Amino acid sequence: MITALCGGVGAARLLRGMVEVVPAGEVAAVVNTGDDTVLHGLHISPDLDTVVYTLADAVNPETGWGLADETWRVMEALSDLGGQTWFRLGDRDLATHCYRTQRLAEGAGLGEVASELARSFGVGVRVLPVTDDPLRTCLTLVDGPEIDFQEYFVRLRHGVAVSGVRFEGAATARPGPGVLDAIAGAETVVVCPSNPVVSIDPVLAVPGVREALAGRRDRIVAVSPIVAGAALKGPADRLLAELGVPPTAVGVARWYAPWVGTLVIDEADAPLAGDVEAEGVRCVVAPTVMSSLERSAALARVVLGALG
Amino acid sequence: MITALCGGVGAARLLRGMVEVVPAGEVAAVVNTGDDTVLHGLHISPDLDTVVYTLADAVNPETGWGLADETWRVMEALSDLGGQTWFRLGDRDLATHCYRTQRLAEGAGLGEVASELARSFGVGVRVLPVTDDPLRTCLTLVDGPEIDFQEYFVRLRHGVAVSGVRFEGAATARPGPGVLDAIAGAETVVVCPSNPVVSIDPVLAVPGVREALAGRRDRIVAVSPIVAGAALKGPADRLLAELGVPPTAVGVARWYAPWVGTLVIDEADAPLAGDVEAEGVRCVVAPTVMSSLERSAALARVVLGALG
Repeated sequence: MITALCGGVGAARLLRGMVEVVPAGEVAAVVNTGDDTVLHGLHISPDLDTVVYTLADAVNPETGWGLADETWRVMEALSDLGGQTWFRLGDRDLATHCYRTQRLAEGAGLGEVASELARSFGVGVRVLPVTDDPLRTCLTLVDGPEIDFQEYFVRLRHGVAVSGVRFEGAATARPGPGVLDAIAGAETVVVCPSNPVVSIDPVLAVPGVREALAGRRDRIVAVSPIVAGAALKGPADRLLAELGVPPTAVGVARWYAPWVGTLVIDEADAPLAGDVEAEGVRCVVAPTVMSSLERSAALARVVLGALG
Repeated sequence: MITALCGGVGAARLLRGMVEVVPAGEVAAVVNTGDDTVLHGLHISPDLDTVVYTLADAVNPETGWGLADETWRVMEALSDLGGQTWFRLGDRDLATHCYRTQRLAEGAGLGEVASELARSFGVGVRVLPVTDDPLRTCLTLVDGPEIDFQEYFVRLRHGVAVSGVRFEGAATARPGPGVLDAIAGAETVVVCPSNPVVSIDPVLAVPGVREALAGRRDRIVAVSPIVAGAALKGPADRLLAELGVPPTAVGVARWYAPWVGTLVIDEADAPLAGDVEAEGVRCVVAPTVMSSLERSAALARVVLGALG
């Protein structure tokens, strides 16, 4: 069994590569829900949906999120009404949010709904929200106010300086059904190339997750989301720098060192391998840019072989 | 000033005819919200939307509700997911519900949102939800359980016998902004050809509305929604019968007699005029079937002229 800790696009692509290498039924994805938000009354789970859509080969290949062959009738009409359209939701994607919101209103848990959606999309990987309870990533801006993740990420396009990150609800959140078992029972725990600060940290913030990972450092392998000093997508580089960590593979190693034994870094960062190991983390160098399914599968092979 | 008490399709058509006859700015529509429901997390106000869409000439002319030139991408995708699709929501229509739900979540009142939507759709009639507070029409079935209006009307296609009707929330509901003023200040109060039991009664159930209508019986004119012993649309005929009132224009007169002074009945029911008047209600006979804009305008002329 392999259990992956997941954010959105990078994680989804690695998972998609992984199921080329091992049977989907042997993989569990523990997915960040700190990005979840409610907009127009709809419960939106961006990372869960990106994982499912990608594994279903239904994702928009250009953006890495949302659905392929999407239409925008609702957003167009909402724009005519002067509604909030900064968070673009395609018509087919909206159906996912309608489904989830209705099921939650009926009393289903987020994990139960995630399973139903995964099944509907024909996804064999077990898709496990890290918690069924509310968990909200909040960012404090250098200039003052605290804002929620989607406002930071989508509305402000992560173009503002952050001084701190907080996971609202984490103190009382319980691990989702199957989460702790998936971690405890995994031969290998993969930390996907997701944002360490706002994708992986909220997963760790759910009480019980760190404990389930403790003492298993030699079975945990992470992939650096930073390549040649820059995040492939999103603000991981700036967030790390703003929180006092070098925005490099070495910074990622330092961030993860307490609980991750092995870090896969990109071949562009090969000269940093010694510095990574100086942080107390085994270093594996490989091509990590998943620009095609073949490359995703190749990276998955490296990751799954990294622990020997 | 003319104030109309409104349900959905029949009311909307009469209003649409009315604005051919008098300036839209002189008309206020006090609209039933007992049909409102939350589905997929979205706040749906069927009667408010039917009124606005119809006045905007944007309504689906075949159904009388929903929008013309509609697409169904979200419903199609929701069906693929096994979601609830018994309540058909078109893509453009969904934008209205998204807008309303988001604005309500931001703290706006239902009346404020109705004004915004009316303005967006270019509607000059004042569209006033009877209350901003929750009001839910519940029907007790002869066979036992109580169900809400949309389950009765849409899911069960009003094909079940009803023994009682209740307006949940009515006891504590407050009239929406402008509602009592619109009634008190109206030269004529028009009771649209809507379902007396589940469209007009919930309007009356909001505390303050009956009081505002009291003593004005001679300024109140209703249009019978029953023509030749049958409702033109919906279950008004069966509901009246189930509640012990003849499902005829005479039954409508009896139902409304305590507070309505004049009833317009269809020319098909001309032989009943004497029986209507025997209920203590002035009777006006006219063509009431609004199968075209011209006919709607003609009926509006009759209604507005009925009080002399």
